[in-house]
Amino acid sequence: MQNERLILVSNDDGIDAKGLKTLIEIASEFGRVVVVAPERGQSGMSHSISLLTPLRVRRVVEEDNLKVYAVPGTPVDCIKLAINQLLDKKPDLMLSGINHGSNSAVSIIYSGTMGAAIEASLYGIPSIGFSVLDHSPNADFSLVQKYAPALISEVISKGLPSQICLNVNFPVVSENEFKGYKICKQTTGVWKEDFEKRIDPYGLDYYWLTGSFHNFEPENQSADEWALANNYASIVPVKIDFTDYNSIDFLKTFKLNKNGTETK
Amino acid sequence: MQNERLILVSNDDGIDAKGLKTLIEIASEFGRVVVVAPERGQSGMSHSISLLTPLRVRRVVEEDNLKVYAVPGTPVDCIKLAINQLLDKKPDLMLSGINHGSNSAVSIIYSGTMGAAIEASLYGIPSIGFSVLDHSPNADFSLVQKYAPALISEVISKGLPSQICLNVNFPVVSENEFKGYKICKQTTGVWKEDFEKRIDPYGLDYYWLTGSFHNFEPENQSADEWALANNYASIVPVKIDFTDYNSIDFLKTFKLNKNGTETK
Repeated sequence: MQNERLILVSNDDGIDAKGLKTLIEIASEFGRVVVVAPERGQSGMSHSISLLTPLRVRRVVEEDNLKVYAVPGTPVDCIKLAINQLLDKKPDLMLSGINHGSNSAVSIIYSGTMGAAIEASLYGIPSIGFSVLDHSPNADFSLVQKYAPALISEVISKGLPSQICLNVNFPVVSENEFKGYKICKQTTGVWKEDFEKRIDPYGLDYYWLTGSFHNFEPENQSADEWALANNYASIVPVKIDFTDYNSIDFLKTFKLNKNGTETK
Repeated sequence: MQNERLILVSNDDGIDAKGLKTLIEIASEFGRVVVVAPERGQSGMSHSISLLTPLRVRRVVEEDNLKVYAVPGTPVDCIKLAINQLLDKKPDLMLSGINHGSNSAVSIIYSGTMGAAIEASLYGIPSIGFSVLDHSPNADFSLVQKYAPALISEVISKGLPSQICLNVNFPVVSENEFKGYKICKQTTGVWKEDFEKRIDPYGLDYYWLTGSFHNFEPENQSADEWALANNYASIVPVKIDFTDYNSIDFLKTFKLNKNGTETK
């Protein structure tokens, strides 16, 4: 029975990442696992798709309960290929990550890990993206290993609303300090860049992107940044409707009815 | 006075696109223009950023009222570099496009054009992304040329709420058929893929991504797809808060208080 549950796994750190291996172990407790993940690191690839280059598939593992495919594309490419070409049925669950590094607050919009989870959710598949606040290749995933199963069990038994996925971030703390999960909203803020300008061996300029997050609501206890700073794992329910409904009435005051046009 | 207004322009079709040239002409009527755009086409690059490769800047035009810089990166890279390195002050307005092809409905999440506009809006710059529903390199931009100035004027005089930008799409219709602007919400739906599987000259498989949009609310007259199908240009106010507030109470029913964790 358990083997009939199909779980799709992907990430943005690529097929060789420790976080992916850990997530495969976690997922395998819940069903048959198919991994479709990028060949190489795709951090910061957001929701991008390959329109200008075709995709290939490398079959890495092909066992009954675990199949692993590597795709030289983006995380969203992986999900589209999985659902439309590689899987024998629609998956019952999609898990993304475990990302090496935070995807809290507005970082969700740059995140390939969340790109994959969001894409799966658009197809109506309950999806969870997991991240830890540690960029290092050897990040410690033991909190996720211990606490993710409870969340996955609840998503399996209760489901998620249609086209909704979860953005889950874990702090870097000891198990004693860890306070458990907290349901949150996405923190408002912006990444402020501080490009590092360098000169190459040929005398030409180049820039490396660096930056720091400016939190607009550091005291808001409902926001994911506050939760993480206070040793909680944050869970943000994610929906892809970019519409700012609050602005619609304001925009209707715009005088656009020049030359026969009209605002409705 | 007019020359003191600074307008940042970018796109995702690259520095040589006809849509960019048209938008530069439109923008030049409103102030001093600085263009920072990708060297090559970046369609489908969404909100991606270059974390693994450094960025260079090619100075294409350096006149008093028009500067054009080309960056071998993504649209969002262009905005970050512009604001943090290339501009002498924060721009008063950011215009993105004109995109060759639609960015309505959920396509906004894949769009590099809207990635650039959204990124600028996160810095508090009033931003507008323009697209026409025609992918061809020689798309007809005459409706945008005629009707964009009224919208730009209103955004300049009335502003936009903080961190809000506009996603504006134009239908492909004659001026007689065109009904003007309509303020809309983002249409709910999903792109269903239909990968084309081919065999290369060496006998290996590869896949081309193709697909069609499945509209979940074709009769909703408030949705941008309906407006476009009925010969309106759609204006959707865009906010980057992915939180699905409706799901928060549901998630609080999850039993996660295993091993000492608690749901708040």
